[in-house]
Amino acid sequence: MNASQEAHNREAFRQAVGNTLERRLFYIPSLKIYRGVAGLYDYGPPGCAVKSNVLAFWRQHFVLEENMLEVDCPCVTPEIVLKASGHVDKFTDLMVKDEKTGTCYRADHLLKDYCKDKLEKDPNLSAEKAAELSHVLAVLDDLSAEELGAKIKEYGISAPDTKNPLSDPYPFNLMFQTSIGPSGLSPGYMRPETAQGIFVNFKDLYYYNGNKLPFAAAQIGQAFRNEISPRQGLLRVREFTLAEIEHFVDPEDKSHPKFSEVAQFEFFMFPREDQVSGQHARRIPIGEAVSQGIVNNETLGYFIGRVYLFLTQLGIDKDRLRFRQHLGNEMAHYAADCWDAEIECSYGWIECVGIADRSAYDLRAHTDKSGVALVAHEKFLEPKEVEKLVITPVKKELGLAFKGNQRMVVEALEAMGEKEAMEMKANLEEKGQAEFHVCTLDKVVTIMKNMLSISKEKKKEHQRVFTPSVIEPSFGIGRIIYCLYEHSFYTRPSRDGDEQLNVFRFPALIAPIKCTVFPLVQNQQYEEVARGIARSLTAVGISYKIDITGTSIGKRYARTDELGVPFAITVDSESSVTVRERDSKQQIRVSVDEVASVIKEVIDGVSTWADVLWRYPTHSS
Amino acid sequence: MNASQEAHNREAFRQAVGNTLERRLFYIPSLKIYRGVAGLYDYGPPGCAVKSNVLAFWRQHFVLEENMLEVDCPCVTPEIVLKASGHVDKFTDLMVKDEKTGTCYRADHLLKDYCKDKLEKDPNLSAEKAAELSHVLAVLDDLSAEELGAKIKEYGISAPDTKNPLSDPYPFNLMFQTSIGPSGLSPGYMRPETAQGIFVNFKDLYYYNGNKLPFAAAQIGQAFRNEISPRQGLLRVREFTLAEIEHFVDPEDKSHPKFSEVAQFEFFMFPREDQVSGQHARRIPIGEAVSQGIVNNETLGYFIGRVYLFLTQLGIDKDRLRFRQHLGNEMAHYAADCWDAEIECSYGWIECVGIADRSAYDLRAHTDKSGVALVAHEKFLEPKEVEKLVITPVKKELGLAFKGNQRMVVEALEAMGEKEAMEMKANLEEKGQAEFHVCTLDKVVTIMKNMLSISKEKKKEHQRVFTPSVIEPSFGIGRIIYCLYEHSFYTRPSRDGDEQLNVFRFPALIAPIKCTVFPLVQNQQYEEVARGIARSLTAVGISYKIDITGTSIGKRYARTDELGVPFAITVDSESSVTVRERDSKQQIRVSVDEVASVIKEVIDGVSTWADVLWRYPTHSS
Repeated sequence: MNASQEAHNREAFRQAVGNTLERRLFYIPSLKIYRGVAGLYDYGPPGCAVKSNVLAFWRQHFVLEENMLEVDCPCVTPEIVLKASGHVDKFTDLMVKDEKTGTCYRADHLLKDYCKDKLEKDPNLSAEKAAELSHVLAVLDDLSAEELGAKIKEYGISAPDTKNPLSDPYPFNLMFQTSIGPSGLSPGYMRPETAQGIFVNFKDLYYYNGNKLPFAAAQIGQAFRNEISPRQGLLRVREFTLAEIEHFVDPEDKSHPKFSEVAQFEFFMFPREDQVSGQHARRIPIGEAVSQGIVNNETLGYFIGRVYLFLTQLGIDKDRLRFRQHLGNEMAHYAADCWDAEIECSYGWIECVGIADRSAYDLRAHTDKSGVALVAHEKFLEPKEVEKLVITPVKKELGLAFKGNQRMVVEALEAMGEKEAMEMKANLEEKGQAEFHVCTLDKVVTIMKNMLSISKEKKKEHQRVFTPSVIEPSFGIGRIIYCLYEHSFYTRPSRDGDEQLNVFRFPALIAPIKCTVFPLVQNQQYEEVARGIARSLTAVGISYKIDITGTSIGKRYARTDELGVPFAITVDSESSVTVRERDSKQQIRVSVDEVASVIKEVIDGVSTWADVLWRYPTHSS
Repeated sequence: MNASQEAHNREAFRQAVGNTLERRLFYIPSLKIYRGVAGLYDYGPPGCAVKSNVLAFWRQHFVLEENMLEVDCPCVTPEIVLKASGHVDKFTDLMVKDEKTGTCYRADHLLKDYCKDKLEKDPNLSAEKAAELSHVLAVLDDLSAEELGAKIKEYGISAPDTKNPLSDPYPFNLMFQTSIGPSGLSPGYMRPETAQGIFVNFKDLYYYNGNKLPFAAAQIGQAFRNEISPRQGLLRVREFTLAEIEHFVDPEDKSHPKFSEVAQFEFFMFPREDQVSGQHARRIPIGEAVSQGIVNNETLGYFIGRVYLFLTQLGIDKDRLRFRQHLGNEMAHYAADCWDAEIECSYGWIECVGIADRSAYDLRAHTDKSGVALVAHEKFLEPKEVEKLVITPVKKELGLAFKGNQRMVVEALEAMGEKEAMEMKANLEEKGQAEFHVCTLDKVVTIMKNMLSISKEKKKEHQRVFTPSVIEPSFGIGRIIYCLYEHSFYTRPSRDGDEQLNVFRFPALIAPIKCTVFPLVQNQQYEEVARGIARSLTAVGISYKIDITGTSIGKRYARTDELGVPFAITVDSESSVTVRERDSKQQIRVSVDEVASVIKEVIDGVSTWADVLWRYPTHSS
């Protein structure tokens, strides 16, 4: 299959999934009756149920199993927090404007489209030119505003809709801005991530955890990104649900007590070196990746393993899942290591979970801005002896030498770091004097040997005070769900072979509705049995949909398969019913009284469908 | 107890609850390290767990039991939607500004404070003046900007902080405004309610429901209100979680098939007439309230009954809960009837759930604005014969008479309503001609008998097309939770009587953590048993907290009671443990292997504590 054929198939598959999702109301473009708004989507009933199932499983898998501290902070965020985090200054994309109509575009998107288009469609492209365009694509994310602008000019790229000339690229902040309170003097933003709400509460959470490290806090909530021109449907939207974990750990000990529980899992990893040298992702046991230093530390490795389990249990195909390490240029300057869980779908490989070691960056930034020390303490079992630098200015001599400037000189001397102080000590001992730059005076003064003493003294310390490192797994819930839809979708011929029917093979855990109840024919007795079963399903907490239309049972099965409902109960007598499993289409006979508890058993994973199949008589349809 | 003593006690109680909540991190003022922002709060770990338990129960009680269609729409909302709903023009509070500092205040709050203060504290107040001030308080919500301004001037009210003069009151829109996309040309707002997201999707949801009424859609999500100056702590905040239901029903048939299930419930109701005549709320069975016409219809009554069940099962005290009917002046002009579930707490009676019959207002507004008909159809079993007005212009005669204006006249004639047409028919028959105003020409023309025929004809219709009515129960989740905290809080003396200990008597359903695990003494065997129990609790989905500090068991019980944890497991041997119930302090002995399943049984409500107490040996502490 050639590239264009493959692209065509991918597009056709995407359309088939998308049509089914939209027709069955998994999602709805927001404000459809007002012709919609780019980048905003509603979850309709089945989509909303899938989302709350994914979130409930996330809570079980991460928060409950790891005893995390879950918090819930507002979306409206005052400017000071996002100043400290760097978002006010740096959360930008480069934008160009159509100089006549004012329509805005992402500069990198236009350049990317141009290069791809040329490479795919221009038969006369020279090898040299092709290499150049490929290079541009490779370094696209690293280009500055000036470089992007120069390329756009060089290639003569104009506005896609009008062919008008474009402005130079300039940064556009992607946060939705608003104003808090009536005065107009308190700017605020809709949060671009949930993480900051956790960082600013570090002190209280650390206390809540008994002043012990490590611990993790978690938050599920809406985040916002005012995209310049949203594309890729459900994957790039202006408002989305994030589920984020901030695991606080001693930077000197990033081991994890439960690492052995995941060490043997083997899955596709794509280390930085392999990317640079043009290799493919390869299966590596996560234990090995950590011991070989491919993954920076055990805690990071533990979360990679847990994310793998989470995604595959949701129904993500493990062969279309890889963990890709960030290249040097992708990573924030403070990050120690970063891996993205990428899922392959019809749009290519999509970043769905970011797992980063953010080091101490955020806690330090908020410490600086707020003046509140966001630090942890390690109490020593026994006081430890440490060497401490002691600088003692001789004020009398300094006063004589520097008069009115004495205080400035004293403060500057006391503020010296260890290296600078030890150099001065050496100079004073060798030469009897040393040159010294006093910042606050902006001049160099001469310090004589009798003006101060510098020494190292042993002191007893009872604790170590440090800023914890943060390991952050951050989940884009909407993206995961979209990829899950693609991975779960398949078609199969109808019984008489005249049409293709759509099926979502959601695991029971995730399925929006767990079972449907169909009276085989429209009569009062069967409907009453169906309503009785519905009541017993509600009582055990199993969601259901009852379908009393007179449509053929085959059509009703097809309708329910398209919603990914794992089980269908057909009421065909007053004492027992037929239960059909979605993917195998196997059927069993169960008594009316037992049916709700049998379904619950399988949904809860207490029994498998195979167990149940063995226990009850099968039924040929 | 006099009024001032009572106020003092209320204040002291509120402080005791508030201190416990804040110390144990049920909530945290947002951005504490940056000195906070009025009206924004974070839920800390136990608060977040309570909230997700309340929401899970809400889903079970409403969405699942009633088979509602849950949706999930973005918070960012384009202006057009909120123009249609009336929020852009009318979602305002009246504000006054300190004329020197610019500080903003709610005008009604200042007037209210002034009146209350005078009434409570001025010993020289004349009976006449007191009556006047009481009247002002009673009509406060009805005062126009001019009336409020006049009163503020008359009473000489100045800015509370500076005593500076105040501006005249003017409306301030309470929505957080923002801009969608980079152009700055698409204004948007953070939604003030979730309901609009449901209304704009009515057509799709109706289709999803098989084009059948009634059905309900539901949505849980954040809503925003940019308060002028937030007060009352957790009760009046700038961002909050709403859970809203929009139940769509045929306006000609608001009966409810399950009404009989709630009809016998009896609780405090406060009908409009009783409020006006100065009575108190009284217990009325909801069945009676509907049959006597106190509550407008069965569907509204059904939801009032379900809300009563929901709140009391959460742990709201039924004696401090009432359903108060809106007075005529409180109700939106389109509402057919409206009841608030009000809960009494230290701040007085607080509106926590609004249950309104919004009639067809919203669907009509969006139909008008979008041009998409948001209507339902009732197919008749047999076609019905209806009389229809038929207007047939005789174009030839009209053309001769009106020449170039003919089209305008024809269109105006065809657009006549039934009453106008029948009047014209009578005139034409009596006098042979009639005067007729043509809007589009802005002039009166004379229509002759031979220019048109007007008749009523019988036609067969196959369906009725109508705009459904909406019954809307809308839950302020944060307010419900705060009232629940107050209703659940009590103190009791410690064992040696030297201090008062705080307890939250949350039902197991709502408790943030279901049980704690304490090794009685610090040793490795007990800790291992404790960790084993923890693992089995996780496996059955029970949240727990493990406390391996060496603190006395009494202190550890006190700590856990203060979080409202219903059960504590003390590991005091390697084979069996002590389980203690929070409120009774009763203890039983259970084997290590059984303990997780016993706790689960009670938490899930399969057994009561009394059942378990009867089954296992008790243990005296």
